[in-house]
Amino acid sequence: MLSDLYELTMGNGYLQATPDLTGYFDVYFRKVPDDGGLVIFAGLQQVIDYVNDLHFDDEDLAYLKSLGIFKDEFLAYLKDFKFSCDIWSMPEGMPVYANEPLMTVRGPLIQAQLLETMILNTVNHQSLIATKARRITHAAGDKPVMEFGARRAQGPDAANYGARASVIGGAQSTSNVMAGQMFDIPVAGTMAHSWIETFPTEYDAFHTWAELYPHNCALLVDTYDVLHSGVPNAIEVFKELKGQGIEDHIGIRIDSGDITYLTKKARKMLDDAGFPNATITISNALDEWVIKTVLSDGAQVDAFGVGEKLITAKSDAVLSGVYKLVATEKDGQITPKIKISDSVAKTTVPGFKNVYRLYNDDGMAFADLLTLHDEKLPTEQPLHVMNANPEKTHRQATVDNYTAEDIRPQIFKNGKQVYHSPSVLEIQKFSKEQLARQWDEVKRVTNPDVYNVDWSPRLAEVSARLLAERSK
Amino acid sequence: MLSDLYELTMGNGYLQATPDLTGYFDVYFRKVPDDGGLVIFAGLQQVIDYVNDLHFDDEDLAYLKSLGIFKDEFLAYLKDFKFSCDIWSMPEGMPVYANEPLMTVRGPLIQAQLLETMILNTVNHQSLIATKARRITHAAGDKPVMEFGARRAQGPDAANYGARASVIGGAQSTSNVMAGQMFDIPVAGTMAHSWIETFPTEYDAFHTWAELYPHNCALLVDTYDVLHSGVPNAIEVFKELKGQGIEDHIGIRIDSGDITYLTKKARKMLDDAGFPNATITISNALDEWVIKTVLSDGAQVDAFGVGEKLITAKSDAVLSGVYKLVATEKDGQITPKIKISDSVAKTTVPGFKNVYRLYNDDGMAFADLLTLHDEKLPTEQPLHVMNANPEKTHRQATVDNYTAEDIRPQIFKNGKQVYHSPSVLEIQKFSKEQLARQWDEVKRVTNPDVYNVDWSPRLAEVSARLLAERSK
Repeated sequence: MLSDLYELTMGNGYLQATPDLTGYFDVYFRKVPDDGGLVIFAGLQQVIDYVNDLHFDDEDLAYLKSLGIFKDEFLAYLKDFKFSCDIWSMPEGMPVYANEPLMTVRGPLIQAQLLETMILNTVNHQSLIATKARRITHAAGDKPVMEFGARRAQGPDAANYGARASVIGGAQSTSNVMAGQMFDIPVAGTMAHSWIETFPTEYDAFHTWAELYPHNCALLVDTYDVLHSGVPNAIEVFKELKGQGIEDHIGIRIDSGDITYLTKKARKMLDDAGFPNATITISNALDEWVIKTVLSDGAQVDAFGVGEKLITAKSDAVLSGVYKLVATEKDGQITPKIKISDSVAKTTVPGFKNVYRLYNDDGMAFADLLTLHDEKLPTEQPLHVMNANPEKTHRQATVDNYTAEDIRPQIFKNGKQVYHSPSVLEIQKFSKEQLARQWDEVKRVTNPDVYNVDWSPRLAEVSARLLAERSK
Repeated sequence: MLSDLYELTMGNGYLQATPDLTGYFDVYFRKVPDDGGLVIFAGLQQVIDYVNDLHFDDEDLAYLKSLGIFKDEFLAYLKDFKFSCDIWSMPEGMPVYANEPLMTVRGPLIQAQLLETMILNTVNHQSLIATKARRITHAAGDKPVMEFGARRAQGPDAANYGARASVIGGAQSTSNVMAGQMFDIPVAGTMAHSWIETFPTEYDAFHTWAELYPHNCALLVDTYDVLHSGVPNAIEVFKELKGQGIEDHIGIRIDSGDITYLTKKARKMLDDAGFPNATITISNALDEWVIKTVLSDGAQVDAFGVGEKLITAKSDAVLSGVYKLVATEKDGQITPKIKISDSVAKTTVPGFKNVYRLYNDDGMAFADLLTLHDEKLPTEQPLHVMNANPEKTHRQATVDNYTAEDIRPQIFKNGKQVYHSPSVLEIQKFSKEQLARQWDEVKRVTNPDVYNVDWSPRLAEVSARLLAERSK
């Protein structure tokens, strides 16, 4: 029932007016958030779960009937709803680009239309967060990033699915226990200031904690004064427990103040006290830019806890993915469709399409190629392509010494799932492997290069023909 | 189970170390998003639902046990969990301000700590969206705002609870059917471009729609060309159906292009064709600033459909509410607690407190007053107060001719709900009434005045004493 009303009013209309028409819808976005170079695709598993469970119960139907706008025939259709669409999709974790179809849904218009709201909600959200996590973990380099944002997430689902997407994008763990349980991803955490304050002294609080959790002993040192109280008390506790095997499980967390200054000083104090393995975690309003800055300023940090700026992608909190009709089919005949807009960028790419990724001899990806679905996997050398970037529509190119790979497996076939779902940690691994095949220039956080999304000449021809017809 | 791991590791620790300590936690925020003048408090109902359903089932306990960090005694406590806290809270829809306790939770530390993540998640999210909706509906004046953002919301809950919060903040309706069903709020919608494209011509698409939905006939006119195709086709359909009683239910929606120009032209075309009651709805990337601008430029708009910028509060996507220990209690003795920070703004306000709103003779609110819980409702005239704004801590004032009202009812008493929950539309009405008692200067979208949050002299004294003790 998570659906915009118009999906249902249109469905009601399709059933009356065009019951035998098949539709093709593409999911794509036009702009990478934060002016980044790539998006990490995520959310497919929740689309699969939703589709497999799609039904309308009596309560739903009674509610819809109460709105007084639907024909009984339509409500009966929903009651006996049987999903029969085909779906192709990028696998989760895949680096993807603007203006290429991430998913394609083919099926009876009434059904394919109905999926729009849920698919966009799920893919837009999780891809947004996975993309932000990729940026943040990229900035952190080899230092682990923990997702700490549940309290600032936009609702419980945003906390849970956002933690999932963060791990897909490279986060090592989440503080969110429910996400840990739901998705079998590592959970992590330390303590809050309230723990410290409930004890007569900071030292008592630390000491009690260290005895309770000798193997997870990260002490929060900024309740009163980091360098004059927190770190000295932590060191005193570490000294007392020395020899009990905790040396490799101790650390401090700093959640406020001047991170670079405080971590440098704290590092020296810990080292001088004989605890070079004590880790320093920081967690105050971090994002990819702050992390890059403090590291380049020489901050002594071993791990990052990232909260609201990851879980909401605060600096650019929307991935504006769309779900657009690109073709209809009747009696086996596919008719490509176009929506024209004032701006070239918003004009849709017509037709039922395939997406190939082109790799060079070193296995590095250098372009994605959109073709019409009945074109074969490209093998001719050299290959003639057209660049699809709206600011480069004149650009034609010839590529050589490449191999092409169809990167969108089929997920549903005539309503049945035909795809084996990987685990979240498998997706994270897949994503890292795919990112290793992308150039550094595309992956950087600021001013990345624009990856090529090309069209086959036949696709370009169809688009030009439809544009010309509509402009007559 | 939506909880940060540390709530549970601390809970485990409290049970060992301080089992008989009672804690007082305040929920508050330090900064209004978008540099606005006020926040609309929302999300209480979902806290109530969560608390009433709080339990740990066998699967949860098995998962927690598998983490290998909790004592059996703690897991047994969770298994037999019986909620026994007191909760006081602002009612939903209330205009609230920085640095005042929106909620206070009192109870066994282990329990009160456990609520932190869920309370913050829910209150931060819904208050954020209700606040944004208040800003947007304020900019729209008497023209209705429809919430259209489900596809860009950060997950399904964000779509549903975000729609609820939008209505609390003044939106008239939502496109989200599930939210309509869950919260009994009005649903609304028109059609997507795909509807138009599945028909041979735009005219056919409009005509079919008008026959299907004569009482909800808002035609989307920007699939091909607003002024040369969309509006003329819409007018032709309206003319054909004239006399069939649809005149007061027709309209157009424009989703792209230059809104001011297009709506002025379209208005004239509709008027000239004899349809002065045909409404014009716009829906392209709107927020409070765009709405103010197009209205002041003379755009001819009857209603606004607002999507991603409302449902994610995109321009400032986080309300950073916190949950801080302010006192502990043992054997009936309450000890106020403070957390000191480098910045005055982040130092907590200690003690178990009440919040009073002060009204002048005209019934307009001019300040909120925080007192210690055992101080009486202030009635003395004049009344001596201290301003709590960290930039104005020196400010003392004397207020006269006021009445004070305790604005935080008790919600739970010893674990039992003692509060009657209003409906969402009742909350919306309450919010409008409360907003009518706030000055325009606080409500404006840009550069609002800062509302006064004052302390009683006794509260100021406690805070000063704790600060001095900690600085020794």
